[in-house]
Amino acid sequence: MSSLAPSARTRVIREPQRAVYDRDIINQILDEGFICHVGFIVDGQPFVIPTGYGRIGDHLYIHGSAASRMLKNLSQTIPVCVTVTLLDGLVLARSIFNHSMNYRSVIVLGQAELISDRDEKMAALHALSEHIAPGRWDQSRQPNEQEFKATSILRLPLTESSAKVRSGPPNDDEEDHALNFWAGVLPLHMVPSEPIPDPQLRPGIPIPENVKHYSRSSKR
Amino acid sequence: MSSLAPSARTRVIREPQRAVYDRDIINQILDEGFICHVGFIVDGQPFVIPTGYGRIGDHLYIHGSAASRMLKNLSQTIPVCVTVTLLDGLVLARSIFNHSMNYRSVIVLGQAELISDRDEKMAALHALSEHIAPGRWDQSRQPNEQEFKATSILRLPLTESSAKVRSGPPNDDEEDHALNFWAGVLPLHMVPSEPIPDPQLRPGIPIPENVKHYSRSSKR
Repeated sequence: MSSLAPSARTRVIREPQRAVYDRDIINQILDEGFICHVGFIVDGQPFVIPTGYGRIGDHLYIHGSAASRMLKNLSQTIPVCVTVTLLDGLVLARSIFNHSMNYRSVIVLGQAELISDRDEKMAALHALSEHIAPGRWDQSRQPNEQEFKATSILRLPLTESSAKVRSGPPNDDEEDHALNFWAGVLPLHMVPSEPIPDPQLRPGIPIPENVKHYSRSSKR
Repeated sequence: MSSLAPSARTRVIREPQRAVYDRDIINQILDEGFICHVGFIVDGQPFVIPTGYGRIGDHLYIHGSAASRMLKNLSQTIPVCVTVTLLDGLVLARSIFNHSMNYRSVIVLGQAELISDRDEKMAALHALSEHIAPGRWDQSRQPNEQEFKATSILRLPLTESSAKVRSGPPNDDEEDHALNFWAGVLPLHMVPSEPIPDPQLRPGIPIPENVKHYSRSSKR
């Protein structure tokens, strides 16, 4: 288990007991999430855009078409915040004040950079694809030259990252335990339903096993 | 149906065919989401924090403990971006390039303001609570004076907002339809499982019906 010393910026100030700086836990949350929310600044206004991402070792690769508009050329970088949040349940306390949610979230701060190296960009596209649906890369036509050029990928080091985790039952005040209200957790799960074949699918192509038995939690 | 003229900032530039400026649709997405991601700026660095929210008419009320640290006093405002994203499915195309996700997202830009008016703050707390679990306000102890003061709520007008929606099957290039790859959509749903009573729950308190039969889509 490796651990990151929090920087002044990633140190969790509000509810520090929920803070996690362990890289294994940070990686687990990043690998389980589907999408991230990327924050960047344009003319003093923050923007937050949902987008796909993938992880390779100590770097996050994010689909950068929106944020990359901010980069005038490949040698620049822009400050971003990438946040991945997994919602695990509603925490229903006896008091309104102690209502909460069970969640796991990761925040990564840093300078995002457009990838120009060909091999790294192809590896990143592979990581983005496998992140969403493991095995999918080999079940699809891979990018041609034009598509490859049309895709912007941003790289962000995981150096400055932290996680926040809340789990378990409500934390009601001691005196509220006597109240006649129900309290507990309503767990929430992101689950797939039956795959819907493309109306234009050629006849005789079965649903691949990895799609049929898609399960996020067993991904790694 | 009311419609918002997009501002230069909320006009969707990437994939404009997915843009929606209709307020009814924007409201539906906001009302179905559990959490939002709030973006704000500290010392030139964007931060993106997941938090709870509620809507009353033309305003969004967000749990502001993180972002409100930026506000030195009640008369100030800070520029924020609030993004709510609902993930509806994985779009598995024949080509890697046309892989996508089905989603509905709303972006609200504007100046967030700490609420000071007592009645408005209580109404906002009610909206935040009912947003997560309708009916919960009357099944809990309501905030006392100390809790009321300890909670920061930010208000953001919905004036400058836009939605982006992708739905339906993959959009593969015509020539890729001949390929022997499966293509289609894997729908995703956020669903509850069995409520878990608090280990300290007093005996004889049944699970409330609204928790037992919790369903997000039938919320409104």
